[in-house]
Amino acid sequence: MNALDDVIDSLSRLPGIGKKSASRLAYHLLKCDQTYCERLAADILVLHEKIKPCSVCGAYSEEDLCPVCSDPGRDRRVLCVVEQPQDVQTIEAVREYTGLFHVLGGVIAPLEGIGPDQLRLSSLVSRVQEGEIREVILATNPTIEGDTTALYIQRILKSTGVTVTRLASGLPVGGDLEYADRLTLSRSFRGRSSF
Amino acid sequence: MNALDDVIDSLSRLPGIGKKSASRLAYHLLKCDQTYCERLAADILVLHEKIKPCSVCGAYSEEDLCPVCSDPGRDRRVLCVVEQPQDVQTIEAVREYTGLFHVLGGVIAPLEGIGPDQLRLSSLVSRVQEGEIREVILATNPTIEGDTTALYIQRILKSTGVTVTRLASGLPVGGDLEYADRLTLSRSFRGRSSF
Repeated sequence: MNALDDVIDSLSRLPGIGKKSASRLAYHLLKCDQTYCERLAADILVLHEKIKPCSVCGAYSEEDLCPVCSDPGRDRRVLCVVEQPQDVQTIEAVREYTGLFHVLGGVIAPLEGIGPDQLRLSSLVSRVQEGEIREVILATNPTIEGDTTALYIQRILKSTGVTVTRLASGLPVGGDLEYADRLTLSRSFRGRSSF
Repeated sequence: MNALDDVIDSLSRLPGIGKKSASRLAYHLLKCDQTYCERLAADILVLHEKIKPCSVCGAYSEEDLCPVCSDPGRDRRVLCVVEQPQDVQTIEAVREYTGLFHVLGGVIAPLEGIGPDQLRLSSLVSRVQEGEIREVILATNPTIEGDTTALYIQRILKSTGVTVTRLASGLPVGGDLEYADRLTLSRSFRGRSSF
């Protein structure tokens, strides 16, 4: 059946969905009513049309300026640098951070052919050079690539004199020493704070 | 962002996809090029239009008669009764069975309000009464509902004189006695065969 194979093929290209899950989803769609299928298809179709990167920070937005950049209540002296647009949503959900964001659009990964030129770094430097920003928080992931990228950004921002900080890395809350990996445990020692 | 929330909401209604997976998929779709999104949406949209239940066995098909029912090489004396259309594909993939199929469209599940009337049972009885079928293999799942449904079908087919069999239930190949549940182990004893 071509129509079924087509949808299974398309669905199995999504991350985390293999051939078997795709097949299960396709049969589920056939069991659903057509109204739901139409809505799902329409939602997928308008996504690119309605959502564009914010012209300032690069987060996804329906307007030219994203809700964070256009909010007059945000602290414009602090800038949080993240890898992906979805990281903005993750941090916003915590309701702890009140400053602005800057989305890199990836990390430096030489093995995948991604160098500093492919990231939104020049716009980051320009934003910092405008002078209002006092602190840049590097919130790239605590991975080799994320750490490398953070180090790189720290260097290119050195001349601007802005304070550059990095998110704390260590044991997750509710975690267990026994199950912590060596690197995490070592970082939690190096980053220990006075009690 | 409404467009993003909409697609996350639609995706999270799929089985096995929670709010977090749906969000991950939505961000992936935004990173993909629009061509892929258009293809996925189109594939989902035409599914109901192109694929209908086979008029004889009830399996999904692009034609009025499914490939199995219209194949002159299949053994028309054996009928395999399954719960769902996708079970046909699962059994076909094994390339062991050469007879025909009959899809019930579910199982008797009083708690979910599904009685014998909602299943494709009258068409099953008619097919058997036509006289060509010699054996009916009940391949409903080895669950309480599947067993109940198999027992029910065995009873309503009794008067037709057709041979009714049930798929063997026991230890899965490559399994381990230690990890087998009590019911499976008990069934594998009752269904033991001479060596």
